[in-house]
Amino acid sequence: MAKGILLLHGPNLNLLGARQPEIYGQKRLSDIDAAVKRHVSAYAIDLRAAQSNHEGALVDSLHAARDWADGVVFNPGAYTHTSLALRDAISAIERPVIEVHLSNVHGREAFRHKSLLAGVCLGQIAGFGWHGYILAVDALLRRWAMLSGPSEE
Amino acid sequence: MAKGILLLHGPNLNLLGARQPEIYGQKRLSDIDAAVKRHVSAYAIDLRAAQSNHEGALVDSLHAARDWADGVVFNPGAYTHTSLALRDAISAIERPVIEVHLSNVHGREAFRHKSLLAGVCLGQIAGFGWHGYILAVDALLRRWAMLSGPSEE
Amino acid sequence: MAKGILLLHGPNLNLLGARQPEIYGQKRLSDIDAAVKRHVSAYAIDLRAAQSNHEGALVDSLHAARDWADGVVFNPGAYTHTSLALRDAISAIERPVIEVHLSNVHGREAFRHKSLLAGVCLGQIAGFGWHGYILAVDALLRRWAMLSGPSEE
Amino acid sequence: MAKGILLLHGPNLNLLGARQPEIYGQKRLSDIDAAVKRHVSAYAIDLRAAQSNHEGALVDSLHAARDWADGVVFNPGAYTHTSLALRDAISAIERPVIEVHLSNVHGREAFRHKSLLAGVCLGQIAGFGWHGYILAVDALLRRWAMLSGPSEE
Amino acid sequence: MAKGILLLHGPNLNLLGARQPEIYGQKRLSDIDAAVKRHVSAYAIDLRAAQSNHEGALVDSLHAARDWADGVVFNPGAYTHTSLALRDAISAIERPVIEVHLSNVHGREAFRHKSLLAGVCLGQIAGFGWHGYILAVDALLRRWAMLSGPSEE
Amino acid sequence: MAKGILLLHGPNLNLLGARQPEIYGQKRLSDIDAAVKRHVSAYAIDLRAAQSNHEGALVDSLHAARDWADGVVFNPGAYTHTSLALRDAISAIERPVIEVHLSNVHGREAFRHKSLLAGVCLGQIAGFGWHGYILAVDALLRRWAMLSGPSEE
Amino acid sequence: MAKGILLLHGPNLNLLGARQPEIYGQKRLSDIDAAVKRHVSAYAIDLRAAQSNHEGALVDSLHAARDWADGVVFNPGAYTHTSLALRDAISAIERPVIEVHLSNVHGREAFRHKSLLAGVCLGQIAGFGWHGYILAVDALLRRWAMLSGPSEE
Amino acid sequence: MAKGILLLHGPNLNLLGARQPEIYGQKRLSDIDAAVKRHVSAYAIDLRAAQSNHEGALVDSLHAARDWADGVVFNPGAYTHTSLALRDAISAIERPVIEVHLSNVHGREAFRHKSLLAGVCLGQIAGFGWHGYILAVDALLRRWAMLSGPSEE
Amino acid sequence: MAKGILLLHGPNLNLLGARQPEIYGQKRLSDIDAAVKRHVSAYAIDLRAAQSNHEGALVDSLHAARDWADGVVFNPGAYTHTSLALRDAISAIERPVIEVHLSNVHGREAFRHKSLLAGVCLGQIAGFGWHGYILAVDALLRRWAMLSGPSEE
Amino acid sequence: MAKGILLLHGPNLNLLGARQPEIYGQKRLSDIDAAVKRHVSAYAIDLRAAQSNHEGALVDSLHAARDWADGVVFNPGAYTHTSLALRDAISAIERPVIEVHLSNVHGREAFRHKSLLAGVCLGQIAGFGWHGYILAVDALLRRWAMLSGPSEE
Amino acid sequence: MAKGILLLHGPNLNLLGARQPEIYGQKRLSDIDAAVKRHVSAYAIDLRAAQSNHEGALVDSLHAARDWADGVVFNPGAYTHTSLALRDAISAIERPVIEVHLSNVHGREAFRHKSLLAGVCLGQIAGFGWHGYILAVDALLRRWAMLSGPSEE
Amino acid sequence: MAKGILLLHGPNLNLLGARQPEIYGQKRLSDIDAAVKRHVSAYAIDLRAAQSNHEGALVDSLHAARDWADGVVFNPGAYTHTSLALRDAISAIERPVIEVHLSNVHGREAFRHKSLLAGVCLGQIAGFGWHGYILAVDALLRRWAMLSGPSEE
Repeated sequence: MAKGILLLHGPNLNLLGARQPEIYGQKRLSDIDAAVKRHVSAYAIDLRAAQSNHEGALVDSLHAARDWADGVVFNPGAYTHTSLALRDAISAIERPVIEVHLSNVHGREAFRHKSLLAGVCLGQIAGFGWHGYILAVDALLRRWAMLSGPSEE
Repeated sequence: MAKGILLLHGPNLNLLGARQPEIYGQKRLSDIDAAVKRHVSAYAIDLRAAQSNHEGALVDSLHAARDWADGVVFNPGAYTHTSLALRDAISAIERPVIEVHLSNVHGREAFRHKSLLAGVCLGQIAGFGWHGYILAVDALLRRWAMLSGPSEE
Repeated sequence: MAKGILLLHGPNLNLLGARQPEIYGQKRLSDIDAAVKRHVSAYAIDLRAAQSNHEGALVDSLHAARDWADGVVFNPGAYTHTSLALRDAISAIERPVIEVHLSNVHGREAFRHKSLLAGVCLGQIAGFGWHGYILAVDALLRRWAMLSGPSEE
Repeated sequence: MAKGILLLHGPNLNLLGARQPEIYGQKRLSDIDAAVKRHVSAYAIDLRAAQSNHEGALVDSLHAARDWADGVVFNPGAYTHTSLALRDAISAIERPVIEVHLSNVHGREAFRHKSLLAGVCLGQIAGFGWHGYILAVDALLRRWAMLSGPSEE
Repeated sequence: MAKGILLLHGPNLNLLGARQPEIYGQKRLSDIDAAVKRHVSAYAIDLRAAQSNHEGALVDSLHAARDWADGVVFNPGAYTHTSLALRDAISAIERPVIEVHLSNVHGREAFRHKSLLAGVCLGQIAGFGWHGYILAVDALLRRWAMLSGPSEE
Repeated sequence: MAKGILLLHGPNLNLLGARQPEIYGQKRLSDIDAAVKRHVSAYAIDLRAAQSNHEGALVDSLHAARDWADGVVFNPGAYTHTSLALRDAISAIERPVIEVHLSNVHGREAFRHKSLLAGVCLGQIAGFGWHGYILAVDALLRRWAMLSGPSEE
Repeated sequence: MAKGILLLHGPNLNLLGARQPEIYGQKRLSDIDAAVKRHVSAYAIDLRAAQSNHEGALVDSLHAARDWADGVVFNPGAYTHTSLALRDAISAIERPVIEVHLSNVHGREAFRHKSLLAGVCLGQIAGFGWHGYILAVDALLRRWAMLSGPSEE
Repeated sequence: MAKGILLLHGPNLNLLGARQPEIYGQKRLSDIDAAVKRHVSAYAIDLRAAQSNHEGALVDSLHAARDWADGVVFNPGAYTHTSLALRDAISAIERPVIEVHLSNVHGREAFRHKSLLAGVCLGQIAGFGWHGYILAVDALLRRWAMLSGPSEE
Repeated sequence: MAKGILLLHGPNLNLLGARQPEIYGQKRLSDIDAAVKRHVSAYAIDLRAAQSNHEGALVDSLHAARDWADGVVFNPGAYTHTSLALRDAISAIERPVIEVHLSNVHGREAFRHKSLLAGVCLGQIAGFGWHGYILAVDALLRRWAMLSGPSEE
Repeated sequence: MAKGILLLHGPNLNLLGARQPEIYGQKRLSDIDAAVKRHVSAYAIDLRAAQSNHEGALVDSLHAARDWADGVVFNPGAYTHTSLALRDAISAIERPVIEVHLSNVHGREAFRHKSLLAGVCLGQIAGFGWHGYILAVDALLRRWAMLSGPSEE
Repeated sequence: MAKGILLLHGPNLNLLGARQPEIYGQKRLSDIDAAVKRHVSAYAIDLRAAQSNHEGALVDSLHAARDWADGVVFNPGAYTHTSLALRDAISAIERPVIEVHLSNVHGREAFRHKSLLAGVCLGQIAGFGWHGYILAVDALLRRWAMLSGPSEE
Repeated sequence: MAKGILLLHGPNLNLLGARQPEIYGQKRLSDIDAAVKRHVSAYAIDLRAAQSNHEGALVDSLHAARDWADGVVFNPGAYTHTSLALRDAISAIERPVIEVHLSNVHGREAFRHKSLLAGVCLGQIAGFGWHGYILAVDALLRRWAMLSGPSEE
C-alpha cells in the first residue's frame, strides 16, 4: 500500500540557492523537492512538499498531515531552536518525524547547537546539504521495509 | 578508483545485541559490520571495521586511517560527550567523519544532548538504529558521487 | 450591564480529544467551549471563543478584544514559554487575563515550568483539565461581583 | 458520603489583614476560613483549617490528614520555594493537594517564581486573593463530582 | 538614483499612541510613518512602511524587500528577543538593517537586554522615541552619502 | 540659550585612525571632534571634547560636566563592560547621556554584548562609525527642539 | 519614652562559647545578652533576648515583637541563607531589623555569602564578634536619636 | 567502655512502611530501630533512636547528643538538600556523623543529588534500604575498633 | 551456591600507601585486597581484584565480569567524575555495582562532589577508608541474604 | 599610644549631599569627615580622610597607610563590586579594613549584592547612612580596647 | 639592530618583597628589574621597566611603547581578571605581549583562573616567581632569533 | 648530581609537523625531543621523552617517573581539559610538573581556556611553539639552581 510523506521546509528556506550558497548550497528549493520526488518515483509514495516562514502555518501543516501522511521529513530552520509549539505538534500527530538540516548546525553558532525538537523526533540528519533529504526519505523507506538492498537479505 | 572507509565503533558497542536491546536493537556488532559490507559490495570500497573501549585506541585508529581511508563512519558512544582528544584527532586527520548514533541521543538523558565531536565532523545521523551506518555510508558515496540514482541525473 | 469574555486557545489545542488524552483529557475543544458557555448562561456574559496555532493571530485576537471584552481566559499552550510578543500584548490591552493550563505544567518537563506570560496576567490556574476554564470564568465573575453565594453575604 | 478537606496555611499567613494589605488583601485569616466554610455548607464536607509558621508542623498536619481528609487546599507561603520536606510529605500522603497563592507570585520577586511543591500537587491557583481558596475547594468538589451546574448536564 | 527604504514595525506597535504612552510616547504609528516620509521628502527615497504582529509576515516582508529596498529600518518589538527566524532573514537578504527601539530597552526588564538580531544588523538605535526612526534613516542617508552638511565637507 | 555638550571618549580611542582601521575606521579622534564641531556650528552649542584612558578621569569629567553641560555624548570604550563607577557617575549627574559605539558591539565578542552603562543612559547608538557621534548630537538637539526639519512642522 | 529592642539569636547560637571558639569567640550567649543589657542600661530601653533553633519559632518571635518592640537585632545564623519565611516575617512586622553576624560571613564558604534576609533589613553588621550586637544596638539608638556624643552636636 | 550512638531520622521517615514502599521498602521505622538494636546487642552500645519532621528539633537532638553520644547515624531526609542549620549543628557537635539514605539518591530527581550535609559528615552510605543503618553502625564500630573479624587480625 | 565479586580499582589507586597517606591511609592496595579476601573467607565467594589506570581497561573488566561475577565493588577514582563510558558499562552489564570511595569526596574539591556513575550504581559508600570495601562487600552479602546476624532473625 | 585611622572614600562619594539624597542622605562628605573627627576627638586618634574616583589612587592610599595607620574605614563605592586590585591591596597592607556602605546595598540592584572586597576585610557595616562610619570607627576602637563603657567592665 | 622591551608591572607589585613573601617571594621589584637587565646585558636590548597601580596609566604605558618597544613582558596583577581596557590596548599596539604571573594563578582562588588578557597575548608564563620574567624575555629573544644555544644549530 | 626530566607528550602530538602547521608549527615531535636534548647536553640531565594517545598510559608514565625523574615537562594536549585522573597522578607523584602548550590555548576555543591540571602543576607556559619546552626545562634548571647566568650572581 502506498505511503504518504510530507516534506516540510521552515523559515527562509524559500531563499535557497539565492542565499549564502557557501553554507546552504546552490540548489533552489523546487530543485530539491523535484530531486526527492524522482528519488521515490520507484516506490508507492505520495510525497508532498510545503514551505512556510510562519511557525503557525508549519504547525497547521503538521496537523493536516495526520490525514494522509505516514511520515514527515522536516527542516525546521531557525524554529528548531525556538519553537515549543512545533515540538508539541510533532508529539501530537504521532507520526515519525525526521529532523533534517542542510548544514552541520553543531559546527556553527552556539545557539544552533540545541534543538528543541530533536527530543520528540525519530532521528536527526545534519550536514549533508540537500542529500540529507534523500537520506531521510531512505530512513523512512527502511523503517517501512520498502527499501532493501544487498545488505538486507 | 577504490575508496577506503573506516567503520569505527566506540565503548560498549561490543555488547550490542546483548545489552539493552529495547534501546540499541538486537543485532550484534559483527552482524552490523557484515550488513554494511554487503551494502557496499557493489562499489569499489575498502571497508574496514574496528571497535575499542579505549579512548586512546580510537585516537590511534583515526590516526592510522590517514594512510588508507578516505572517510570515516564513527559511532563514538559515550566518548561523544567527554572526549576532546577524539575531537582533536578528527580535526587532525583531515578526512570527512560522520558521527552516527543508534538511538536518538537528543531524546535521552541531558548529558547525551551535547556532542563534543559534532562540530568538527562532516555531519550527524542519529536515531535510526543500525540503519544509520548504511545511511552514513550512503552519505559518503553521495559525496564522492559514487552513488547515484533516479534523483541524480 | 453585560460583560464580555474572550476564551482564547493557543497552539495544538485544536487537537484536544484526539491528542494524548491521558494528559489532556477526552473532551474536544468545541465541547469545552460549549460547556463554558452553558456555565455562564445564567449571567449577562458575552462569551466568544477563538483558537489559533499562530502567535501573531493570538496577538491580533487580544488586540481586538479591547473593543468588546472585559476579561480574557487564555490557554497559551506552548507559547506560554516562548512568546514575549504575547506578553507585551497582554500588558498593552489593559484587561484582566487569566492564564489557564489543562495539565499541571509544573509537574512536566522543565521547559514548561517557566511562564513568560504569568507575570503580566491577573493569575494562573493549572492542573484541573477543562474544569480550569470554568474556574477561571468564576474568578472573573467573582472579580466583577457577579458571582456570589452563601460564602459572600 | 461526606468528604474531608484540610485548609492549610503556611508561614506569616496568621498576619493576614494586618500585613501589607495592598498585596494580600484586608481579610483576616479567620474571615477567610469562615467564608470557605460557608461556601461548602451546602455540601457534605468536613472542612478543617490550620495554620503554622513551622515547616515541621505543616508536615505533621499533612501526615495527620491521611486519617480523615480526602483533599487538601494548601497555601504554603514562603515554604513554597524552600521546602523539600513538604514536597515529600505531599507525595507521601497520596491525597490531592491544591497549591493556592493569594497574590500572583509570578509577577513578584524572581525567588517567588519557582515552586518546589507544584510538581507533586494536583494543580495551582494563584493571583485571586482569598477567592483562590473558594476556587480550589470548587476544584475538589468538581473532581469528586459533588459540584455540578448547567455546564455539567 | 533613488534608494528604497523599508520601514518595518513588529508586534504590538500598531497600538502605539493608545498603549502605555509613558513608555512609548503619544504618536500613533501612522503619525510616525508620515513624519519619516516628510523627513525624506527632499531626497530621492522610496520609503514604504509595514507593520505586522506575525513573525512569519515580518520574515516575508524582509524577503520581499530584496526586490526594491536598499536598506531597512526595523523595530522588531518583542521578536527582538525571541526570533532566530528574523535573524536568519536579516542575514539572508544582504541589505543593511538598522534595529530601532523607541524605549531604552537596556534600562527595562532583563529579558529586553539581549537582542538576537543586533549581531547581524548594521547597528542599533534605542531610547529616543519616534526620533529614533529619523536618526536611523539619517544613518542610511549618511551611509549612502546622500546626507551631508557642514560636518562633511 | 546656548546648550553645552560634552563629547567624552574612553580608553584606547586616542589611537583611532592608527588602530585596527578595518574595525574602527580611518579618522583620527581629532578629526572626529572637528567634524562634530562643524556639524553643530549653526547652533548655539558649547561643545567640548575630552579623552582619557583612566576610568577615574572619566568619572571626574562627568562630574565636572554638571557645571556647564546639558548633555553628554559618551563612547566609554571597554569601560562599557566593566565600570560600575561610571554607571554611578552617569546616574549622579542627572544629565542625559547617550552611549555611542563606533562598531556594532553586538556583533563582536560576547563580552562586548553587555553594557553596564546602557541602563542609566538616555539611549544607545552603535555601529555607524564616526557618524554615530553626529547622530547622537542630533538626538540631543531634537530632544531640546533645536533641530527641526520638514518632519517636525 | 522607652523603646523596646528584641535581641534574637538563630540556630546553633545556643552553643556559643562551647563551639568552634576560633570562629565564634569564647563568650557564651548569656554573657553576650548580659553585656548588651549593661550597654543599654543608661537608656530607657526594654531589651529582651531569645534564641531558637526552630525557623518557625523565630518567625513567631518576630511576629510577637510587633506588640512591644521598636527594633530588632537579629543574628539568623544559617537561616540567613535558606529562609524566605523569615524574610517575609521581617517584611511583615514593619520594624527596623538589623542583621548581625559574629564572623565575617563574606570570607567563609560561598554558601554564606548570600543573605536572603539582608534585602529587607535596615542594614547589616558582620565580622566583629559579640561587639557586633553592641554596634547594632548603637545603630538603633542613633536612629532614634537616643545616642549622641561629641560628633552630633 | 560503652559507646553511645544516636540513630536520628528526619522528615517523613515516620511514614516508612506506609509510604511508597517501592522506593523506601516495607519495614516500619520501629522495625528498623529494633533491628539495629538487635545488631548491636552484643556490643557495649547505648543506642537511642529519634525522629522528627522539624528541622529545629533535629538540631536540638544533635546538640543534646553531645552529652551522651559518641557517634551519630543520621538520615536527614529532605533536609539533606535544604538545611544549613543542620550542617552547622553537625560541625558544632564534633562527633562523627554518618549520613544514610535508604534509596540511591543519586539516581533520583536532580535536587536529591546535592547534599548540603555530606561535606561535614564522616561519610555517606546510600542505596541499601534499611541495611544502610546496619552498615553505618558497623562503620562506627570499626572506627572504634569494637568490630573485628577474620579480616582484621 | 558460590557468588562472584569483582573488586575493581581505578586510576592512581595502585599508589595507595605511598601517596598522600593523610587522605588515603597507609594500607597498600594489595593489603586491602587481602583484607577483603580474609573477610569473605567464611562465605562461598569467588573474589577477584583488578586495578587499572586505563578507562578502557576498566570498561573491559566490567564487561568480562558478566561471565563470572554476581556483583561489583568499584572504586572508580577520578573517573567517577569524568567517565560516561564507565556509566554505560555499568548499565550494560546488569550486575549490582557499589561505588566506593576511600575519602569523603563530598568534603573535598567541588569537582569531586558530582559522580557520573552513582545514578546507575546500586549505592554509594564514601569516607571510611579501606573499611568501605568491607562494608560494600557486606552490603552485597546482605542483598544475597548470605550475611545474617542477631539483627536478622 | 595614639592610633592612626584612614577614612577612605571611593568613586562618586565626592558628590554626597548633592547626589540622590533619598538614597545617600543630605550630608556632604566634608560634613561626615568632620563628624567622625569630632567623634574621635576624645581619643588619641590620628584620623585622616581621603577621597578619589580613581581605583589606582585608592590602591595608592591604602599602600601609603602602611606607614602611619593602624586601621582603615573604607567605603569603596562601586569599586566594591569590580576591583580585584583593591582586594589585593587590602590583603597586602595587613591592616584591619572595615567596609562601609551608606545604603543597604543588599536591598538594591543585584550587581550591588556581591562584594569582591568583603572576603579580605575585617567586617562590613551597611545601611546606616553616615552613622555607619561612626560605627566602624567604634568597631576599631573596641578592637583596640580603647572604647569601653558599662557593657565592658 | 637593538630591540626594545617594556617590562610592565601592574597593581600592588610595588609592594613585592614586603607583601606576602610566602606567595610572591622575597625579591623587591627593583631587584627583579635589575636582574632582568643583567640577564639581557649581553644582547642589544633597550629594556625599560615601569609599574603602576592605575589601570589607565598601564594603558598609557602600552600605548607609549609603540614608539620604541618591540615586545612587552607584562605582569598585569589583578587587572588580569577585570580589565578589558588593557585587553583592547594590547590588541591595539600590535606588539607581542607576554603575560607573566609570579604565582601559579591557576592554583589559587577561582577568580584568578580566568585571564581577560591571555587571549590577545602571545603567550603566558605563570608559577615560576621572578624567574618568569627571565623566561619571558628569553621567549622574546628566541622569537627574534637573538638567543640561540646548542639546541638551535 | 644528575637530575632526571621526563618530557611527556599527550594525545595527537605524534602528528606534529603533519597536522595543522599554522597552529602547531612544522617541527616533528622527534625534532623537538632532539632539540631539547641538545639544549640540556651541557648539564647533568637524564632526559627521557614519551608520547601516548592513551590517558591511562600517561598516568602510568607519570607513576613510573617517580623512580627516576626529578621533574616533568608535560604537554597534556586535549587531556588538559578533561582528565582528572592525570590531575590526581600529578598530585600523587610529588614531583614538579610544568604544563606546556604549543599554542596560546587562551586565544582559541573556550573549551581550551580551562585547565584541570594547572592547579596542581608548578606552573604553565603556553604560546611559544616548541620553544616552550626549552623554556620549561630552563625553569626546572633554574629551580634546581643548575642554570645561572649574568642575572644570578
